[in-house]
Amino acid sequence: MPVTGRELRSTANGDGTLSLALIDVTLDDPAADEVIVRVEAAPINPSDLGLLLGPADIGSLRTGGTAERPEATFAIPPARMASMTSRLGQSLPVGNEGAGTVVAAGEGAQHLQGKRVGMLGGAMYADYRKLKLRDIVVLPDGASAADGASLFVNPLTALGFVETARMEGHKAIIHTAAASNLGQMLQKICLKDGVPLVNIVRSDEQAKMLRAIGATHALNSGDTDFPAQLVDAIVETGATVAFDAIGGGSLGSDIVQAMEQAASRTMTEYSRYGSNTFKQLYIYGALDLSPTTLNRLSFGFQWSVSGWLLTPFMGKAGADVVGRMRQRVLDELTTTFASHYSRVIGLAEALDPDVLRGYERKATGEKYLIDPTRG
Amino acid sequence: MPVTGRELRSTANGDGTLSLALIDVTLDDPAADEVIVRVEAAPINPSDLGLLLGPADIGSLRTGGTAERPEATFAIPPARMASMTSRLGQSLPVGNEGAGTVVAAGEGAQHLQGKRVGMLGGAMYADYRKLKLRDIVVLPDGASAADGASLFVNPLTALGFVETARMEGHKAIIHTAAASNLGQMLQKICLKDGVPLVNIVRSDEQAKMLRAIGATHALNSGDTDFPAQLVDAIVETGATVAFDAIGGGSLGSDIVQAMEQAASRTMTEYSRYGSNTFKQLYIYGALDLSPTTLNRLSFGFQWSVSGWLLTPFMGKAGADVVGRMRQRVLDELTTTFASHYSRVIGLAEALDPDVLRGYERKATGEKYLIDPTRG
Repeated sequence: MPVTGRELRSTANGDGTLSLALIDVTLDDPAADEVIVRVEAAPINPSDLGLLLGPADIGSLRTGGTAERPEATFAIPPARMASMTSRLGQSLPVGNEGAGTVVAAGEGAQHLQGKRVGMLGGAMYADYRKLKLRDIVVLPDGASAADGASLFVNPLTALGFVETARMEGHKAIIHTAAASNLGQMLQKICLKDGVPLVNIVRSDEQAKMLRAIGATHALNSGDTDFPAQLVDAIVETGATVAFDAIGGGSLGSDIVQAMEQAASRTMTEYSRYGSNTFKQLYIYGALDLSPTTLNRLSFGFQWSVSGWLLTPFMGKAGADVVGRMRQRVLDELTTTFASHYSRVIGLAEALDPDVLRGYERKATGEKYLIDPTRG
Repeated sequence: MPVTGRELRSTANGDGTLSLALIDVTLDDPAADEVIVRVEAAPINPSDLGLLLGPADIGSLRTGGTAERPEATFAIPPARMASMTSRLGQSLPVGNEGAGTVVAAGEGAQHLQGKRVGMLGGAMYADYRKLKLRDIVVLPDGASAADGASLFVNPLTALGFVETARMEGHKAIIHTAAASNLGQMLQKICLKDGVPLVNIVRSDEQAKMLRAIGATHALNSGDTDFPAQLVDAIVETGATVAFDAIGGGSLGSDIVQAMEQAASRTMTEYSRYGSNTFKQLYIYGALDLSPTTLNRLSFGFQWSVSGWLLTPFMGKAGADVVGRMRQRVLDELTTTFASHYSRVIGLAEALDPDVLRGYERKATGEKYLIDPTRG
């Protein structure tokens, strides 16, 4: 029996606007290796906002539609329309991951009927989602949908950072926007695995919170002596790789510069080409949409600044490593990989102006969970 | 018998000045595996200027000393003093490479007496240079000192670009400031090796000159439709790696963006993470000292911007590859790797204000050669 439900869609239009709407979608019966899941929890991650809102100007929000089928429209700043070309006119579903209950199962999947599962694969901001078996994971007994909603993006990203550092021979890690859910997971992983971590945050409260879960290095980038603190922490830990969620501005550049300053402390002879220490900055987020500024003259020549994204990382790491990572997430679901949500909203509420402005702020410590069963 | 001669020295001082001077240096008899070479030709490469003048403000030039022992002093802009810390107060010799005649040879090197050799190893802006045998190469019969003066830096760098591209699986290359001596060598190598090359220059004359030596793609970044031309050239060649001599500003960013635009032409489905095409920008020079600006939101996530430097590249490539590269330079010394000098100056002349301002401009097509035997 086909199932009909709502699905949140984002469309960038040729007239320079971006619109959000809920449309009705009907799912046919699942094939042999498929299930239909009633979505009960789906987080709003920063990586979802990129697709949901793109570079839209939130200040220009106009609302329409009805209470049950709300609509929201924004202006896209003209300078950012170039990056929209390849999605213009396409009604795109949103939501990378979620969790819920299997309400229909194909021939080969009858044993999953009624089970609670975690899901990966997009289009999670919806009442129902049809998925292949490879894209779901049965949750441990007793786990709630909220427990299993963020099983993939943050946990695998945090584990991916540590794997990347290992694969490339770095012995310690620097992380920015480190008080995030992802940042807390990374701190817990690093503690378990004995990998030194330098956390960079934007307030003393965030630094205190990280210390409370075991952080040795939690630096406030607002401190006047932050640059010196950072060099000291790098000398102490030997960090030569950084993962940066912010992207814009010069913080990433400041980190590479601090790594070079730390390296040059041990140099016995001047070289105009800088140290022999290879320094890697990975940009994995875009909390700041402004351009990245690299003051590279202070880096020497042994440096690299690169994009980091989970999917190609997993492709490179291979099935064995990814399998090990996924198992660890399940094993430590309610400890290392516990997520905290500051607010649970319904699907229609995601288009409410006040709610929308709330999750768009991407404030650290604030995280929204969509539960479509709330309406 | 010890030999005494002049040597050019550059010193960054704690008072915020940088001074150049000629000092007398006495070389003891060479050891068994050493020779003393009378320097007859040493090029002023952009990479030498970094050590010679560093970030000094050329407009602040003050001269002193005598005609035979001139001195020059400059102010270092305060903002750039941080990058000078590790060389403060050190009297540093300058000049990466050169050529000349062996005037004294150790026990195991008697066969080299009187031979003309190319040299690598710094301190070439001098009357005499003592070197290990591994740092010299006997020039082919009939080669002048000028022919052999630029045997290493530009030829090995140009070959290193092609080797890097091959090692990393790129099938075509983009090069900026491409009308330079190095750029011409790269074009000749790429023609011989069948590697498509997209040259970016700053004038129609430079583009014409490159076409005259066989370039298919020679784009003037000043053209109003340069961005579209660049995307077309990338689509045509499949270039996914660029070597950038400029470093500052946004040209490097524009190149990565053009690579992404070229890649997205073949995408059938929108992805907010951009294309799966990995795009690499290497910055190997600093013709523009200003910060690098990356408009990374148009890159997707599959990109890397890195420093490129000859010495670590050779370490990574290994002795076999480097041996093959060096042999090729000798084999094609007066063809592929011929250098052109717009002016030959004496050692003392290198400190003459007008001459100094001339080579400091780093104008494409202008290249200075120091011949210390001219005084």
